[in-house]
Amino acid sequence: MRKYSIDTTLRIRLRHQAGEFAKLAATIAAEGGLIGEITTVRVGEADLIRDITVETSDDEHTERVLGAVRALAGTELLHVIDRVFACHKGGKLHSTSRVELRHLADLRRVYTPGVARVALSIQKDLTLAWEYTGLGNSVGIFTNGSRVLGLGDIGPVASLPVMEGKAALYDQFVGISATPILVDTHDPAQFVETVLLIAPSFGAIHLEDIRNPECFVIEEELRARLSKPVMHDDQHGTATAALAALINACRLTGVELRNARLGQIGLGAAGSAIARLALAYGVKEVLVTDVSEAAMSALSAAGARPATLKSLMSEADIVIAATGRPGLVSPGMIRKGQVIFALSNPEPEIDPEDAMAAGAAFAGDGRSINNALAFPGLFKGALDVRSRAITSEMLVAAAETIAGLAEPGEIVPSPLNLKVHQAVRAAVAQRARDLGLAGTARL
Amino acid sequence: MRKYSIDTTLRIRLRHQAGEFAKLAATIAAEGGLIGEITTVRVGEADLIRDITVETSDDEHTERVLGAVRALAGTELLHVIDRVFACHKGGKLHSTSRVELRHLADLRRVYTPGVARVALSIQKDLTLAWEYTGLGNSVGIFTNGSRVLGLGDIGPVASLPVMEGKAALYDQFVGISATPILVDTHDPAQFVETVLLIAPSFGAIHLEDIRNPECFVIEEELRARLSKPVMHDDQHGTATAALAALINACRLTGVELRNARLGQIGLGAAGSAIARLALAYGVKEVLVTDVSEAAMSALSAAGARPATLKSLMSEADIVIAATGRPGLVSPGMIRKGQVIFALSNPEPEIDPEDAMAAGAAFAGDGRSINNALAFPGLFKGALDVRSRAITSEMLVAAAETIAGLAEPGEIVPSPLNLKVHQAVRAAVAQRARDLGLAGTARL
Repeated sequence: MRKYSIDTTLRIRLRHQAGEFAKLAATIAAEGGLIGEITTVRVGEADLIRDITVETSDDEHTERVLGAVRALAGTELLHVIDRVFACHKGGKLHSTSRVELRHLADLRRVYTPGVARVALSIQKDLTLAWEYTGLGNSVGIFTNGSRVLGLGDIGPVASLPVMEGKAALYDQFVGISATPILVDTHDPAQFVETVLLIAPSFGAIHLEDIRNPECFVIEEELRARLSKPVMHDDQHGTATAALAALINACRLTGVELRNARLGQIGLGAAGSAIARLALAYGVKEVLVTDVSEAAMSALSAAGARPATLKSLMSEADIVIAATGRPGLVSPGMIRKGQVIFALSNPEPEIDPEDAMAAGAAFAGDGRSINNALAFPGLFKGALDVRSRAITSEMLVAAAETIAGLAEPGEIVPSPLNLKVHQAVRAAVAQRARDLGLAGTARL
Repeated sequence: MRKYSIDTTLRIRLRHQAGEFAKLAATIAAEGGLIGEITTVRVGEADLIRDITVETSDDEHTERVLGAVRALAGTELLHVIDRVFACHKGGKLHSTSRVELRHLADLRRVYTPGVARVALSIQKDLTLAWEYTGLGNSVGIFTNGSRVLGLGDIGPVASLPVMEGKAALYDQFVGISATPILVDTHDPAQFVETVLLIAPSFGAIHLEDIRNPECFVIEEELRARLSKPVMHDDQHGTATAALAALINACRLTGVELRNARLGQIGLGAAGSAIARLALAYGVKEVLVTDVSEAAMSALSAAGARPATLKSLMSEADIVIAATGRPGLVSPGMIRKGQVIFALSNPEPEIDPEDAMAAGAAFAGDGRSINNALAFPGLFKGALDVRSRAITSEMLVAAAETIAGLAEPGEIVPSPLNLKVHQAVRAAVAQRARDLGLAGTARL
């Protein structure tokens, strides 16, 4: 699956004769293209037109397939659509009016003069804004584009398609109104000041794709200065999804997670948060290793035990690698019966198949850790009860809920299962209430 | 009309007998309530339930009507809905996904891994963001809530219902995706820095409800530093709508606008912009008066002639007052045949009826100047051609278009007539092309 990341739809005219489609299919197959959806557009007497979606691994691969199809006698390549680009056309978001404006009376309610009464009532009692504005259901997604997916520092504008994608998930999964905000600075203090100055615009602050260590400073400062949920998804969304996968991997392999020795290799945004969340979950011993002394001592202060890569691999029952260094873990390092998650994208620290061959009880890669399972319900649950924060206890509640909803034999449920998000939302809201956080948010 | 700004819906149980409804109607009438929509909810044997919408002038007036209804024998007031508050419930905007996420293939296109290719292509060629993100159709509505409607400095959060209302108009009138951004500062330099830092998030910048003189500084600085449309609506949206109304008022009264002497009383955001736009339109002589020396000399530098209130009233053929001072213009000051617009809300500088009685050829108040006629088409037209600015020539094109679409005998068309916005959009885009501004915007 993984290698086929490009969908291209080819509109092709074929002769309407036995064997013509088989020839075409064989040509695509010979170039390693995977045939997906096939739609018949028009059937004529002598020929017919079909839309054939072909999956390929990269642009060069696509070109090879297209070249072979063009060279095939008896077929004509009419049109080529890159499905990914097609669905990004014009952007993936729209700020839509929830009220209809048909009559003058509508306008006079929604706009002047009616709106003045609503504005004045909020001026007198700020909490009315929860009810009469969108603040109670809104999230600002803030990034500077300094660490986008596996692409690195591509800048704010180039990161917008990713932020729009996140916002689209918010809308479709839990009905949150989310807005991408691109902050054009690499200076963490300036980033923080900017978010603080426009924070009144949103009920909660989602930080996204900010490189480390700036992401730690920014999140910590904003949490301290705002009384509304602030969460860096690359840290805590990932950690929550990882903990859910861990819980189920341990269940499948009979490992007792809380009594296990967990080793975290790599203490960037994801790795640090995973180690911390494992501690919050109650894992007895968490070993950590990283090239950065600062990261090691920060985690040590949080209760983890610094280790070398070698000692970690030999001591840990469960190993999570999030280093960005493909092949860092060799099969010879694997201890029989270990649970291994190698999260780096697109190439993991060790191929799950190799890890299994080397004796791992379970091995997974980044595909099993999808933070789209976590962030929508986390923010929705926190907003539901107007909690001033998303705490580690709430992350644990989300992870346990996600884990509990996986199909038998699966590590995690599908993020397209909307029941998962509703369950996470409810669990997070309940945990916030139990913690006395309900109603603590301030606008 | 003006005085009835509150709609309240009363759900009432009445005896099903002749004369009962008449008694209720008389009771409401006796308190000065206007009966609007009547809906029958349920008809029983002995009684029936009706929703009756009553228009009142203020909260106290509503309470008087409700009290009288409650006291009326044989009727029971079951439920009261404030229609304005009801339609603001939960906010008036939602950031909606334009793509559907049903299958894993959708998710892989919109989100990872597909989105990475779109992000990378934009990193290589920033202009692709016009096509594959929402930037080409997006406006950020920035305010600090320092001068909201006629309410003054109510702060950013209390201004949000107004900003959501503006955004709702953008969506419904021209399909622009607009986002309110509340900036929590009174310092113009900090406001400017904040807008600049997050300006990559939007295709254009709409400034709203910022007090003067800060609004002038902020707009000027942002225009100088950004290569995308920046417009303070309280200045130029209002001026455009005012020029449209002026054109038609002059047409109705046979005054030749360009050859007339125009007097502008009050040089706040609206007044300054009206005077400047009149000069840009080609009005030969523009007289201005204000208590602020700074405002007077700024307009003098722009080509207007400073005057006293008295000399302005006696010399001008057309008078526009935008001072916030009700009753500033007395009937004795009116010269026979003058065209008068007294724009202050909610109480004008002179009541149009009084001005007409004193000999004015035409008199209007703020209701005839609706910037909802102008800003949607102005921004949409500028975005259509990717103009780096909205210039005074484009404002004039919009004003002439708006004026041309008024019904015979009317001063301005209805903002609910979508053809008006499409015509403004087209005229603004064409003017931008004529000026060589097409394609000059930078992300």
